[in-house]
Amino acid sequence: MRMTDLIAKKRDGEALTTEEIRYMISEYTAGIIPDYQMSAMCMAILLRGMDDREVLDLTLAMQHSGDILDLSPIQGIKADKHSTGGVGDKTSLVLCPMVAACGLKIAKMSGRGLGHTGGTIDKLESFPGFSTALTEEQFFENVNRHGIAIMGQTANLVPADKKLYALRDVTGTVPSIPLIVSSIMSKKLASGADVIVLDVKCGDGSFMKTPEDAEELARNLTRIGRLAGKRCAAIITDMDQPLGFAVGNALEVREAISVLKGEQEGDLLRLCLALGSCMLTEAEFVSTREEAEKMLLDAVHSGRALDKLAEMVSAQGGDSSAVYHPELLPQAPVVMEVPAERSGVVSRIHAEAVGLVSMKLGGGRATKEDVIDPRVGVVLHRKLGDSVARGESIAAIHAADEESARAAVEMLRSCYEFSDSSVIRPPFIRKIL
Amino acid sequence: MRMTDLIAKKRDGEALTTEEIRYMISEYTAGIIPDYQMSAMCMAILLRGMDDREVLDLTLAMQHSGDILDLSPIQGIKADKHSTGGVGDKTSLVLCPMVAACGLKIAKMSGRGLGHTGGTIDKLESFPGFSTALTEEQFFENVNRHGIAIMGQTANLVPADKKLYALRDVTGTVPSIPLIVSSIMSKKLASGADVIVLDVKCGDGSFMKTPEDAEELARNLTRIGRLAGKRCAAIITDMDQPLGFAVGNALEVREAISVLKGEQEGDLLRLCLALGSCMLTEAEFVSTREEAEKMLLDAVHSGRALDKLAEMVSAQGGDSSAVYHPELLPQAPVVMEVPAERSGVVSRIHAEAVGLVSMKLGGGRATKEDVIDPRVGVVLHRKLGDSVARGESIAAIHAADEESARAAVEMLRSCYEFSDSSVIRPPFIRKIL
Repeated sequence: MRMTDLIAKKRDGEALTTEEIRYMISEYTAGIIPDYQMSAMCMAILLRGMDDREVLDLTLAMQHSGDILDLSPIQGIKADKHSTGGVGDKTSLVLCPMVAACGLKIAKMSGRGLGHTGGTIDKLESFPGFSTALTEEQFFENVNRHGIAIMGQTANLVPADKKLYALRDVTGTVPSIPLIVSSIMSKKLASGADVIVLDVKCGDGSFMKTPEDAEELARNLTRIGRLAGKRCAAIITDMDQPLGFAVGNALEVREAISVLKGEQEGDLLRLCLALGSCMLTEAEFVSTREEAEKMLLDAVHSGRALDKLAEMVSAQGGDSSAVYHPELLPQAPVVMEVPAERSGVVSRIHAEAVGLVSMKLGGGRATKEDVIDPRVGVVLHRKLGDSVARGESIAAIHAADEESARAAVEMLRSCYEFSDSSVIRPPFIRKIL
Repeated sequence: MRMTDLIAKKRDGEALTTEEIRYMISEYTAGIIPDYQMSAMCMAILLRGMDDREVLDLTLAMQHSGDILDLSPIQGIKADKHSTGGVGDKTSLVLCPMVAACGLKIAKMSGRGLGHTGGTIDKLESFPGFSTALTEEQFFENVNRHGIAIMGQTANLVPADKKLYALRDVTGTVPSIPLIVSSIMSKKLASGADVIVLDVKCGDGSFMKTPEDAEELARNLTRIGRLAGKRCAAIITDMDQPLGFAVGNALEVREAISVLKGEQEGDLLRLCLALGSCMLTEAEFVSTREEAEKMLLDAVHSGRALDKLAEMVSAQGGDSSAVYHPELLPQAPVVMEVPAERSGVVSRIHAEAVGLVSMKLGGGRATKEDVIDPRVGVVLHRKLGDSVARGESIAAIHAADEESARAAVEMLRSCYEFSDSSVIRPPFIRKIL
């Protein structure tokens, strides 16, 4: 088998066989097929497409390129969630304890943040002492005992995707549905859960600019997941502004706690209820999403969801008293308000730019080696459609010092756009598949 | 400017600007843009295409990636010819002396052979002492004095094409008209002739499998040549069998001499007359192709064409007596006939396979480092449509020893296919553009 022939086949619009796809992924992962052949193949796949059988084969070949987590030592139904990424997305911090409190098993691998998006692990490390460096045995034991554990991704999880993604990023081959689907689903399959729920963002800052494209991606993700024998659902949400109000690690943990306590309503709670109810219905804990929502809200209002978070934090070496006393979480020494320069209605908040403000404050990484300051970030006071009078604060900057706070105030101001008339917003949750 | 953005632009079907194309070629030639980005770009160009302005810009950018031969020290109109390659293609050996004898200036750079195709330089080196390693000054002086000179390609002629072609060869991106056109025309433009005539092959062993594809390529080549200010014509010919009868270096020189003497008619002579008459009409030496053919045949029958070959060989250090006494050319010690195993009409001769027989005998290179034996090769006695009786010879093998001759006999047999009924052949010259 020669890679040149496989490239020519895909270039001419033919389907690759299972054997050909396996050969390509294993030889590429092993460093035998060079990058310059794989990038030509990625472009041919992007422009010629792949049928479902090919995408499934590609996903499975990638899944098997490294270690696979076998969750069978864990009793019960294991659920996992994936988001295509967003600014201020602390969904996992709320959703995981909520569904674990309902009896679903959460055995989740998470990543760290890079650039303008944060990572769940960075956020959880705001709890003093919290560690995600668990052995497999500890991980399984924690899930069996507490119903929930979150660990860092093992180094050798889907190495084919690590290599491929780095290559696609510099060769214009990111926005290909077969390549996105195989990238996401290979990792989800290798992580071993029975139920997989996907949060597909659409809008400016995401892969999929239009709701139609996002829906196509979501349909492909769930179809491939089901073909691989998993129970899957997907939600399409708008990413036209940061999710919730806080952007920054400890600030997002505080917000998550406030939602788990039932103190905060809005887009974050609605998204967690939607994702959670998909999980509970796919797991057949209940038969309708309405029943599932009721079950989830009950976990919140009874305090069981918050207790589940505390239980996990404590089981992974963290100080769980901060769950009940968030003032114990790391706090920035400087808090500076951002007064509006004009009156009006918020017509736009550039999510990516807000993420960069938090990064510049020290809350995110520009390079993999950067160390994160958990204290810093941004708390928005006004979101899309909200009115503000000139001089009122639109957001608060949490910073390590006065100088960086002042710079952040200026940057944050330029993330906002205002209008004189009222602003009509599309529904936040576009569709549930 | 970032290459990733240029790839995305072409991927989305947009045209690249002149600046973008120049940037891409100069940075790629300099080794700054890596192969894995360029191969993704080549695939995007192959599948999305390029408009004429882009192809012209690409051709010019490649032309200027290295040295450019300025032929202005040569008086008169300079003509050049390019063939898309074929087995037994000794056209240059016949055509160049023929048109030079009519007064056109031939200042030609030629290459060496690789794989199943031969190179004009290898063939000319069958003349003992002949050298193509001329300085530019010698080259210009020879053309001014004798009307003809053939030199080896300078090392730094279109380095962008050397790099790009090697990359395209292993990434499934050879069969793209914009890439083929810019590859061929950048070299022709850098070689400096005023009149460029192209021989575009179609059929099994060539890039272009169908006459329609070959015509599209030919039209694109001449259009880009004209946009670059050159006088251009193209001929589309069938490559369903080797051109002429001989395949192998000295053997092809002998055949060329025999055509120049007016002793051999057939496809080779017809092709040289067609290409030569395009050159003479494009150069406005005569106004019709009929007049041009008369002029060329006159050069043959008067002996002036043969004398021109002898003049060139002698001016480049070779022994020109071999032009008049071909028995002085290197001769193989073993000549073995290939008897037909059945009676019938020749229905197919696999040209590429015949080229490989000659290569295996030592007449061609498997790798760039191989040394060529000028004596060996194949002389076909039967071509498409010819009848043969069982036991009659279809070809002669010229070999260095008995053992390689016997192996070649077997290989050559499998190059032929026979039919019981008569064979209808398409016209050899498909079209003149």
